[in-house]
Amino acid sequence: MMKNLLITNVTIVPMTAEESFIQNGYIFIESDVIKDVGHTPHPPHLKEQAKIIDGEGMVAIPGLINGHTHTPMSILRGYADDFPLMDWLKKMWAVEDRMTEEDIYWSSMLSMVEMIKSGTTTFCDMYYGMDRIAIGVEKSGMRALLSQGIIEGDSGGEELLTETVEFVRNWDKSANQRIHALLSPHAPYTCSPSLIEKMVEQAHILDCSIHTHLAETREEINIISERHGDTPIALMEKIGLFTRHVVAAHGVYLTDEEIDILKRRQVGLIHNPKSNMKLASGVAPIAQMLDKGVTIGIGTDGAASNNTLDMFEEMRFASLMQKVSLEDPMALPAYETLKMGTSRGAAALNIVDQVGTIEAGKKADITLIDFRKAHLSPVNDVVSHLIYSAKASDVAYTIVDGSVLMNNGKLTTIDEEEVTWHIEKIKNNLL
Amino acid sequence: MMKNLLITNVTIVPMTAEESFIQNGYIFIESDVIKDVGHTPHPPHLKEQAKIIDGEGMVAIPGLINGHTHTPMSILRGYADDFPLMDWLKKMWAVEDRMTEEDIYWSSMLSMVEMIKSGTTTFCDMYYGMDRIAIGVEKSGMRALLSQGIIEGDSGGEELLTETVEFVRNWDKSANQRIHALLSPHAPYTCSPSLIEKMVEQAHILDCSIHTHLAETREEINIISERHGDTPIALMEKIGLFTRHVVAAHGVYLTDEEIDILKRRQVGLIHNPKSNMKLASGVAPIAQMLDKGVTIGIGTDGAASNNTLDMFEEMRFASLMQKVSLEDPMALPAYETLKMGTSRGAAALNIVDQVGTIEAGKKADITLIDFRKAHLSPVNDVVSHLIYSAKASDVAYTIVDGSVLMNNGKLTTIDEEEVTWHIEKIKNNLL
Repeated sequence: MMKNLLITNVTIVPMTAEESFIQNGYIFIESDVIKDVGHTPHPPHLKEQAKIIDGEGMVAIPGLINGHTHTPMSILRGYADDFPLMDWLKKMWAVEDRMTEEDIYWSSMLSMVEMIKSGTTTFCDMYYGMDRIAIGVEKSGMRALLSQGIIEGDSGGEELLTETVEFVRNWDKSANQRIHALLSPHAPYTCSPSLIEKMVEQAHILDCSIHTHLAETREEINIISERHGDTPIALMEKIGLFTRHVVAAHGVYLTDEEIDILKRRQVGLIHNPKSNMKLASGVAPIAQMLDKGVTIGIGTDGAASNNTLDMFEEMRFASLMQKVSLEDPMALPAYETLKMGTSRGAAALNIVDQVGTIEAGKKADITLIDFRKAHLSPVNDVVSHLIYSAKASDVAYTIVDGSVLMNNGKLTTIDEEEVTWHIEKIKNNLL
Repeated sequence: MMKNLLITNVTIVPMTAEESFIQNGYIFIESDVIKDVGHTPHPPHLKEQAKIIDGEGMVAIPGLINGHTHTPMSILRGYADDFPLMDWLKKMWAVEDRMTEEDIYWSSMLSMVEMIKSGTTTFCDMYYGMDRIAIGVEKSGMRALLSQGIIEGDSGGEELLTETVEFVRNWDKSANQRIHALLSPHAPYTCSPSLIEKMVEQAHILDCSIHTHLAETREEINIISERHGDTPIALMEKIGLFTRHVVAAHGVYLTDEEIDILKRRQVGLIHNPKSNMKLASGVAPIAQMLDKGVTIGIGTDGAASNNTLDMFEEMRFASLMQKVSLEDPMALPAYETLKMGTSRGAAALNIVDQVGTIEAGKKADITLIDFRKAHLSPVNDVVSHLIYSAKASDVAYTIVDGSVLMNNGKLTTIDEEEVTWHIEKIKNNLL
């Protein structure tokens, strides 16, 4: 089956370098890989070999990368807003305890619908019941880093660890390498150092990355200080967490020394501005960390603390939040922010050899945004518009691994009606 | 011509009181006025007298009220981002000096397209060339408070004042009372106390409100302190500004005494969170002012410092910004925020006798939001979804003064293609 694609007459923001902007160009995709990117006109023979997408009026960017989320939590969207954090967590956990594998599957599919529709091509997930989510990812066609989050109970987490090691063995590099499997100690306040050490050991054996929450709230800082007389990232450094590649969500409260550790250990830090704002956790020192060379991506966190999975909004919040908190209108400018949503996000997830830019040799993960909208008019600056004006609803095509998952606004791999039918049923049973 | 409307099977958030929520109801509109609101079934005879809008799956809210903007600045969207404030202003002013009345008209129409599409029914505008904007408002069918902003030049502003008094005489209460005309000293740092005093005097004669910027930046505080040995709102109190109803944009830097003045004088304060964040002006003490009983609405400011005119985003930023800056996840909860975008916004603009709620006797300004979307599923909480999840693109119907300005996604009063054609031409000439 010929699966080649030729996108014509399209504005391209390849994210390889700011000056590589192409006002009117083409992208040729052979099977799952980008083969050629250039200025219009395209070599004439290409159009005989490929399905053509007319990119007139559209802007192509590397598919957006949601660096940290909990996809099944979309069932809890709006279920417990405007609560203090601990009450919120209790409400969440009470429901989550009762969620079946079916509930997890459909809730995760709902998140994938929302992500594909808003131009996200890769997400990094942490939850339980991951086997079912992996099946969903196979079906949806998205790219995903999946991890079974471990919260250490009375049992010491041994059983959970065995299960999650099994998960990594079964799923890592599956689905034409669209699926990466990771190990995931939930956080330093929910896992003991000895369990985390065991997980690091396993990660070395499995040769996989680790996904965790780090330094999210003042309360976490206090807990770790009381228990271990240390700060979270310094503690993790001591127990060897960063001897593997780590995806660390949040990083709101950090010492200068810890920022140095993040930089030196090439930790992929994921900034979740809306969740940090909505739960009132705090403002992460993103501009400062970028200055020091930390690798930072952007994530939405779960829909229950956001309450969307919309990377356009997330990038916008990231930029505006840094500007006001530093009282510097030049902080986190548009191009830097877009990098965090694409190429730098890919680096943070350690998949930059696969995706994150539009250039020959990379996997074909591409989002096309229709700029023929009043709120994007006039087009004074494409990159500015992507960060400060574009909306999820402007996305017309979402392409992953060379497959068109959304074709001019229509989903091709997921039956949205079926998903929302199941969601309604689950909500009525569960909530 | 019969112009009655019956909206059936619709969820209604009337904003009269939190408990007045109607899960499944109807709204009957006779000409420009809401005649009846109730639970399904509607009285059978109504459907013979009216055009029916099927509200199945939709949520009706009072039309959103954009309390402060500069509509012609949409031509400058993305023209100068990520600049320090003073450089930004210089870039803006250099272009604005060259804008013709035609440029102003079409740029303002572009803003009206964006606002109607995102469910905004009323806006409060400050710019120059207001006669042309008023003509645009007549045509678009929106409700608007229009004011000719005066920046005092070498001439002392006398000539401009004569012109703007003329504008108020010509336009106030025109277009079936959709247009309100106001006087507008731009700000205390661009107008002398003596000019402002003259404008207050005129406002008494004309019986109109006053629209101005107040206490937006630290720099403004410094300027007013140096020139007058006072803070902006205290100074305005002394020169009698608040003897008229005032719409005051921003209010970022305020003393406790000034908050008391705002409350006592029933000033309509307009919060512009995205502009304050993007220009790095600061965080207005909204939760504190609400506690003290200040009347606060929400505005987008101009598109050049936002860069959209999307009240859903603006409400979301308002709520999340207060939560994180106060480290309180309960700050500015969903319903309070929606009030600022509707009923309280109407009070801030002193038009609450006309609009701001869905109840019999009010003008029929109503926005219908289609909730059958993945990112609004499941519907755990309608009001939460309106603030934390809904998008401009979910708006299906925008009704002003009983006229459907957007009918299931299609504009009825403005030719969008014509507007964007003109905008492209203007951009090429001007920028």
